[in-house]
Amino acid sequence: MAEMINIENIVERIREILDDENIQQLTEELNGYHSADLADIFPELKPEERLLCFKHIEEEKAADMIEYLSPQLQVELLGDIDEELASRIISKLPHDSAADVLGDMEDDDSETYLDKLPDKFSAEVRELLTYNEDTAGGIMTPMVMTVNVDMTVEEVLSHIRVQAEQDNIELYYIYVLDKQNHLLGVVSLRKLLTSSVHQKVEDIMIKDIVKLHVDDFQDYIADVFMKYQYNALPVVDLYNRLKGMITWDDVQDIVEEETTEEIYTSSGISTDVVDEDEILSGNIFKAIRARTPWLFITLIGEFIAVKVGNHFGATLHAVPIIAIFMPLLAGLGGNIGTQSITLMVRGLSTGQVTLSSAMRHIVRETFVGLFIGTLFGVMVALVTWGWRDNIYLGLVVGLSMLINMTMATIVGTFTPFALKSFKVDPAVASGPVIATTIDILGLAVYFTLVTIFLVKIM
Amino acid sequence: MAEMINIENIVERIREILDDENIQQLTEELNGYHSADLADIFPELKPEERLLCFKHIEEEKAADMIEYLSPQLQVELLGDIDEELASRIISKLPHDSAADVLGDMEDDDSETYLDKLPDKFSAEVRELLTYNEDTAGGIMTPMVMTVNVDMTVEEVLSHIRVQAEQDNIELYYIYVLDKQNHLLGVVSLRKLLTSSVHQKVEDIMIKDIVKLHVDDFQDYIADVFMKYQYNALPVVDLYNRLKGMITWDDVQDIVEEETTEEIYTSSGISTDVVDEDEILSGNIFKAIRARTPWLFITLIGEFIAVKVGNHFGATLHAVPIIAIFMPLLAGLGGNIGTQSITLMVRGLSTGQVTLSSAMRHIVRETFVGLFIGTLFGVMVALVTWGWRDNIYLGLVVGLSMLINMTMATIVGTFTPFALKSFKVDPAVASGPVIATTIDILGLAVYFTLVTIFLVKIM
Repeated sequence: MAEMINIENIVERIREILDDENIQQLTEELNGYHSADLADIFPELKPEERLLCFKHIEEEKAADMIEYLSPQLQVELLGDIDEELASRIISKLPHDSAADVLGDMEDDDSETYLDKLPDKFSAEVRELLTYNEDTAGGIMTPMVMTVNVDMTVEEVLSHIRVQAEQDNIELYYIYVLDKQNHLLGVVSLRKLLTSSVHQKVEDIMIKDIVKLHVDDFQDYIADVFMKYQYNALPVVDLYNRLKGMITWDDVQDIVEEETTEEIYTSSGISTDVVDEDEILSGNIFKAIRARTPWLFITLIGEFIAVKVGNHFGATLHAVPIIAIFMPLLAGLGGNIGTQSITLMVRGLSTGQVTLSSAMRHIVRETFVGLFIGTLFGVMVALVTWGWRDNIYLGLVVGLSMLINMTMATIVGTFTPFALKSFKVDPAVASGPVIATTIDILGLAVYFTLVTIFLVKIM
Repeated sequence: MAEMINIENIVERIREILDDENIQQLTEELNGYHSADLADIFPELKPEERLLCFKHIEEEKAADMIEYLSPQLQVELLGDIDEELASRIISKLPHDSAADVLGDMEDDDSETYLDKLPDKFSAEVRELLTYNEDTAGGIMTPMVMTVNVDMTVEEVLSHIRVQAEQDNIELYYIYVLDKQNHLLGVVSLRKLLTSSVHQKVEDIMIKDIVKLHVDDFQDYIADVFMKYQYNALPVVDLYNRLKGMITWDDVQDIVEEETTEEIYTSSGISTDVVDEDEILSGNIFKAIRARTPWLFITLIGEFIAVKVGNHFGATLHAVPIIAIFMPLLAGLGGNIGTQSITLMVRGLSTGQVTLSSAMRHIVRETFVGLFIGTLFGVMVALVTWGWRDNIYLGLVVGLSMLINMTMATIVGTFTPFALKSFKVDPAVASGPVIATTIDILGLAVYFTLVTIFLVKIM
């Protein structure tokens, strides 16, 4: 049973071995781990410890590990080790990973490495580097198993034997091309193995295939993979010439990144101008830049709330005590509103909620808001009445709670649909803007009710 | 180029064809779509339209489409169509999907279908139904390509040809077993095709393999897949006997579900007692039950805030106008605090943030809070001073803003780490509890400062 490993214990053990300077034991210990485990261990080591350890990992395993590391750590580690070793490691990476690593380096550094790499590999990686890294061209690997449309099954099988031995090619699907490299079809190994060896590949290939274009952006790519659930999809250029293939593990990383961006955006952290990686680490002023815009919008919105409060200055002057219930109303309105926003934004993102079901969700959420609002309104009314011994104050606070919570669910449910139908990403703006809107509306309702019942409350 | 389709247009076109009662055109139209596209179209049709359309889809394609549909719609559709047709469709599903569909039906209904299914299929599906649906046993497919450890490469290849033709088996990896079905190793097709036909499979298989246990829960399974990035992993029982295989597309669904739960939990929607599906649709009182607990915690927290406000009743009575700045302080404190929580909770979930880097993040976030807090504090101070013509009021509001925003980032950053180190899911409680805590602290700071400078402000 391959249990998930306990990183802290291992790091401690490695430190002990390093202290003992027992090279043989270190080599055995390190090479005993899966490369994905090593990639979990390395970030926890100090830079000098990493260097000491890295030299003792077999080169194949070291290259595998590099693939699993974060971009920053990849560049840092390769920059710190011997240039010759780094080149050898890079040449062992799949083309797309090599391009990613080199693309993250300074131009001078990546040129140095590209010059040291085998010519064919270097040329192919250079081509990948010409694509935008967020498009299919920048994500794909050019290492694809291709066969000519005229071949028989027998020829294809022996061709695969030769090609698979030469190159580090994944055998997901075999793509069928004409002489000019136009993509004509796809055939699975399963189909090949179960067909008569004399059949033409043309007769057993699937012609109606889902494919991606080199310029397709990563969010679209993720959507296509999520929908059709293939292991791999071919990537073609404008003329339908096969350029490469994207596999599900590339998409995995995209989906994780897209989800992170969706979550960040919903919390008012802008990922448009600042790369998502840089918000947690890297230049702190970029992090500040990502976080300030929506806070500023909130500031403006809350100044409107201040203005609303000021408008009822006379009421506030007459019964200052009403002010202490403001956080209660704002807090619960904000909370239930956030729940509604979250349900709609996430649902729209996964496809569980669609524009055509908008009305149903709005009705449902309104009922939820009314029900919970009534429940909480009654509780708050009773507590306030008991505490301040003023039934009217209790009624006003309770009724405000009911109206505020109901309004919050309606605003929180309606706004994402409205944004979506205007083709605006519902995650954007939803959180902070809706929270502020709820604050302003809730405050206006509360102060209005207080003003109406003023004589009774005083 | 397979563009993503426009559902609304297609639904409209299908309705027109249905109105014309042109069966041939309907059949052509429907069977022209990819089954994943049909699965996007079907939820938008009315139940009676679905029934009319379903009959005209080829059975293979219909079965594929069923796989892509939501559990509710699967059960609804199969229940509405002819029982014989439903049985045929179910028997065309992969074992794990058939078990999922039957598991979601009433026991009587699923028994009816199980009796109608081919004996072998029915027995295998029955075994899958004995596992908890959230564990590896409930997720895996038993259809795995297996070979005996004594075979040669040549024997394996011809064995694969026969087995692949008989069954609907995916050819990800070939698992090597002994006579008692113990899992000994794995060999890829690539390795098979590039090895000499007379080699023993034992000599070319990989022995050190990552595997899952039938009782492993889905969050663990997702973690293992995310980490090692395999296409498929074998599932064994307590005695290391191979029971099945889990493929990446199963994990895809788990990851989406886990992410949704994480997002819900962060917004105070409890997914412990209520199934995540039922919050958006289904019994509305279950949805209310999922949403009330954290709202209630917020209610208690905000009553503490009310108490804090009440404690400063005299101050409030002396200068009621200070109350109108409360939403401003609470809104911005809540917002920047939420940003910090989001960054930490998401980071801990993706692994970008670890407990061992906690101190670094707390320091970084404190700096971010101080910087943005100072910026916003100065803005608010200047605006307030200019507006109310009272420099002391400006200073008090501005200083409160600075302290409040800094505190909010610290609390928002620290709490997820604290929860995590006590083995509590940091997503739980984070949102609502931290927001309320920030409300209470911010209010206390503000009223204290106002009280200190009371004579100057009045």
